[in-house]
Amino acid sequence: MPAKPSLTYRDAGVDIDEADRATSRIKKLARATFNERVLADIGAFGAGFSLGGLNLDEPVLVSSADGVGTKLNVAFLMGVHDTVGQDLVNHCVNDIAVQGARPLFFLDYFAVGKLDAGVAEQVVSGLSVGCKENGCALIGGETAEMPGMYRAGEYDLAGFIVGVADRSEFLGPERINDGDVLLGLPSTGLHTNGYSLARKLMFETGGHSPLSRLPGVEGTVGEALLQVHRSYLKAIRLLHEAGLLHGAAHITGGGISDNTPRMLPNGFEAHVKLGSWEPPAIFRALAEIGHVEQNEMLRTFNMGVGMVFAVAEAEADRAVAMLAESGERPIVLGSIVKGAPDAKPRVVYE
Amino acid sequence: MPAKPSLTYRDAGVDIDEADRATSRIKKLARATFNERVLADIGAFGAGFSLGGLNLDEPVLVSSADGVGTKLNVAFLMGVHDTVGQDLVNHCVNDIAVQGARPLFFLDYFAVGKLDAGVAEQVVSGLSVGCKENGCALIGGETAEMPGMYRAGEYDLAGFIVGVADRSEFLGPERINDGDVLLGLPSTGLHTNGYSLARKLMFETGGHSPLSRLPGVEGTVGEALLQVHRSYLKAIRLLHEAGLLHGAAHITGGGISDNTPRMLPNGFEAHVKLGSWEPPAIFRALAEIGHVEQNEMLRTFNMGVGMVFAVAEAEADRAVAMLAESGERPIVLGSIVKGAPDAKPRVVYE
Repeated sequence: MPAKPSLTYRDAGVDIDEADRATSRIKKLARATFNERVLADIGAFGAGFSLGGLNLDEPVLVSSADGVGTKLNVAFLMGVHDTVGQDLVNHCVNDIAVQGARPLFFLDYFAVGKLDAGVAEQVVSGLSVGCKENGCALIGGETAEMPGMYRAGEYDLAGFIVGVADRSEFLGPERINDGDVLLGLPSTGLHTNGYSLARKLMFETGGHSPLSRLPGVEGTVGEALLQVHRSYLKAIRLLHEAGLLHGAAHITGGGISDNTPRMLPNGFEAHVKLGSWEPPAIFRALAEIGHVEQNEMLRTFNMGVGMVFAVAEAEADRAVAMLAESGERPIVLGSIVKGAPDAKPRVVYE
Repeated sequence: MPAKPSLTYRDAGVDIDEADRATSRIKKLARATFNERVLADIGAFGAGFSLGGLNLDEPVLVSSADGVGTKLNVAFLMGVHDTVGQDLVNHCVNDIAVQGARPLFFLDYFAVGKLDAGVAEQVVSGLSVGCKENGCALIGGETAEMPGMYRAGEYDLAGFIVGVADRSEFLGPERINDGDVLLGLPSTGLHTNGYSLARKLMFETGGHSPLSRLPGVEGTVGEALLQVHRSYLKAIRLLHEAGLLHGAAHITGGGISDNTPRMLPNGFEAHVKLGSWEPPAIFRALAEIGHVEQNEMLRTFNMGVGMVFAVAEAEADRAVAMLAESGERPIVLGSIVKGAPDAKPRVVYE
């Protein structure tokens, strides 16, 4: 009589050998981002990062968690896995930079139904590029193989960032003044928000494929939708270190409508002139395909503006000149106006 | 002729109103964990945490990212969503505590196909309990609604923790000595590892349901599998602050076999006596159902030992007494033995 079969972890869909292969490739990509502050190598239970010699009066850690959202589905469709990591790092960097912080380190969470070391390597290569470009160390992460949770060829990706600011340079809403000028910086596309609606509009309602081309849109639809979410770190640091920044808002899910108020104290409104910039062709195409109302567009997509700054009226020209000189194309969007006392901050479109 | 329908973000499966409801409940649970170091409220782009007045010579931040793995599927089966958050926080706390760090703050990533504010609230209530019990602040996170990515009723949950240690108290492998005694602390069950195999064994091979009962196993199978991953923070701090800890290993995925070596330098082996403790009934049941070989069990499950300490031989009795007095039930597992120079650290079972 044959012995009963002996079950292994691998029989349950978890392949420790593939995990080891993935880990060894990830280690190399992560080490490329290390600096002298990184103490523990990948593989320790927790990653160590020294704050020695920072020379800040009161260090404030600023942290953020984020995901890539259903922009991942576009990456799956295109079979392109080395850009979503850059999207994620840049998104996280922007979220802490608008509070006045410089990035220190980043960790990721990569979850998949069946681990493919090659795909994992491509994803982490994007994280590594993003971390290097923003001067932060990719010091840890978790690669989770969860059989049955994700469809074949799909994965989820989330990231966590920690940065530091001296308390005196931490940007909260208290610096905002009546009359401050609002400056916008261009986005590279949808960044990482609104993809559930964008995919429905493009691939269902509009019947387009990732290889379709649309008037005025550079490259294919797939390429346009996969444009990397850009980092605004340099522009933010430029104005903040010059003492010009009263506030900054990263335009993510919720668009200009829901994100600009996050930098304002109660009792203040952001008055934004809709004619002050022209939304790029991809946004016009999305609106036309689904007859999407302007308000819905403005609270779902960034509409071509990925970052909004508030600067003093008297310093606005100088800020614009500094940004332009650094290669940015700043847009004067409008201004901050005092509203009803203690009213929730909001955007008023003009 | 009727106007063409106007599409909204909601039509694409993303419900901003439900997200607002979830956020308002999450805010309350998170605020309950705040302390005087938390600067920015939930809702800011990045969360601020002051390190002012820490009084450390060289602060080292120790961080870790983790997920709950397919223990989530047991939570889905049972309809119990308020314990997985505790699992996750305790897992993360243990991972940084073994490096000598005390937890400071935690952020989560919660991803779902269709957001249910009630389920999100239960999940975050577990995070809040775990954070309060370990003295860390739940200062941020991301709730991602990703239509089509997750099945109805399913979600993924990941966490990210940051703690601090003075560089002089950071625990690396360099403190390990030949002859150090290995002490083990009991786990509460599978903690958060090996669930893909455990679910296959219990619910497929064994044909059990979450309501089945097994000899020697307390409660139902579902309850046993959902036992909360415990925190070892107090025990670790007790020994470390007394200067007794040479190393600590959190026994997670890979079991005693793969995790104990993570606290050792090259050229050292952990000799573990298999007869020194009795694996709880749940592990014996799993092994019997699938005729799982002992080596496979030892590199998949914690087998009843969730934490391993290395202490000096001369101080082992004192360490055991201190742990016992604090309510722990320490097990003398074996000892550290010098092996071939520069050989990769490993476990030798005796």
